[in-house]
Amino acid sequence: MKETSKISNAVIRRLPRYRRLLKELMNKGTERISSNEMSALIGYTASQIRQDLNNFGGFGQQGYGYNVAMLHDQIGLILGLDQSYKMIIVGSGNLGQAIANYATYYKTGFQVVAMFDVNPKLIGISINGIEVQDYENLDSYLASNQIDIGIICTTKSSAQEVASCMSNFGVRGIWNFAPVDINVDEDIVVENVHLSDSLNTLVYYISNNQKP
Amino acid sequence: MKETSKISNAVIRRLPRYRRLLKELMNKGTERISSNEMSALIGYTASQIRQDLNNFGGFGQQGYGYNVAMLHDQIGLILGLDQSYKMIIVGSGNLGQAIANYATYYKTGFQVVAMFDVNPKLIGISINGIEVQDYENLDSYLASNQIDIGIICTTKSSAQEVASCMSNFGVRGIWNFAPVDINVDEDIVVENVHLSDSLNTLVYYISNNQKP
Repeated sequence: MKETSKISNAVIRRLPRYRRLLKELMNKGTERISSNEMSALIGYTASQIRQDLNNFGGFGQQGYGYNVAMLHDQIGLILGLDQSYKMIIVGSGNLGQAIANYATYYKTGFQVVAMFDVNPKLIGISINGIEVQDYENLDSYLASNQIDIGIICTTKSSAQEVASCMSNFGVRGIWNFAPVDINVDEDIVVENVHLSDSLNTLVYYISNNQKP
Repeated sequence: MKETSKISNAVIRRLPRYRRLLKELMNKGTERISSNEMSALIGYTASQIRQDLNNFGGFGQQGYGYNVAMLHDQIGLILGLDQSYKMIIVGSGNLGQAIANYATYYKTGFQVVAMFDVNPKLIGISINGIEVQDYENLDSYLASNQIDIGIICTTKSSAQEVASCMSNFGVRGIWNFAPVDINVDEDIVVENVHLSDSLNTLVYYISNNQKP
C-alpha cells in the first residue's frame, strides 16, 4: 500500500470523508455498500468513488460492492492511521486548548505530548494533563524529543518563527492554524487550516442564494 | 455578478485562496500579476486560474495580466464579502471562544452578536464583550433576532439539535465545527469543518513520505 505515488491531492482529501461515512455505516450495522449507494450518501458520483478507490487497487467486487468494515480499515491504512504520532502544540490559548482536547478525545493514534506559550498566565496550567511550558523551552524540548507533528496555534506574526524552529529540529509535518501560509524545508509536510476560507465559502452560497 | 450559477464547488473553494494571495501582493505593493506568476505562487496551473476567473467574466487583459487590487475586490464581491453578517455561536468552550476572537479580529463584515452554552461555569462570562447566555434562551433569542450564520461548536451529540433549532428559526447558513455531518432544511447552507479530515490528510503525506 505504501508504494502508492502521484495520487492527486483532491483524491487524498476525499479519503477521510469516505472513511467517516464508512464508520457511520459500521455504527448502523451496514455490512456492504455499492458505489451508487455511497454516492447517494456522500454526494460524489459513483464513478468518482470507484475511480478514487481504484487508485489504491480497488476494494470492491462486481455485484457485491464494498465490504464496509474492510474498506474503512483499508482507508485507515492508506492514510497511515495504523501508526501513532507524537504532537506538540505551540500557542496554548483557546484554539490550542481546543485542539488539545479534540485531538486527545477523538484520535487514539495521536498523542499531544507537550504544549507551549509565551503568555505567563498560560505557562504552568494543565490541559488534559499536559502542562503548558514556556515557549523559551521549545528549542531544547525539540532537541531531545522526536516529534512527528507540530501544531501552530499562535498569532499570524509568530507563526513563521515557530514553523522554522519546528522545521530545524526535524518535525515531520506541521498543522498550521495561524492565518498565514508558512514556508519551511521541502521535506516537511505543511497542512494549513484557513478557517476564513471556509467561512468565505459559506458566505458565497448565502449571498448568492445557492447550495453547494 | 449575482446571477452566476452552476459554478462548481471546487472553483468557489479556490476563490478565498486567490483573494488571500492578492491581499498579500497588495501588502507588498504589487500592482499587477499574470496568471503564470500567480500559478508560481499558489500552485494551481495558470490555465486553471484563468478558467476559474473566467467563470465570473474574466478580469485579466492579454499582455497586462490582472490588476491586483481590482481582482481582490472583485473576488470579495463575488464571495459576498461586501455585505455584513450577524452570527451566533452555540457552544462557548475553548473552540467557541477561539472562533469568537478570530471572527471579530479578522473579519470586519462578520459580527458575533450572541454566544450560548449549557455549562453554568461559562454562562455569564464575557468573550470580546459578548456575554455567554444560557442555551435555554436560544429559541427566544432566534425568534426575535434575524441571524445570518449559526456557528456550532458543541459536542457531536448536541450538534443536530442545535442545527435543527437554528434551521427552524431561519438562520441562512450554518458553520459546523462539531465532528458530525448535520441535516437541515434544503434552503440552509451548511459548511462542515472536519478538522480530523485535515489531520488525516497531513498524516497521509507524512506516513507515505510524500509531498502534496
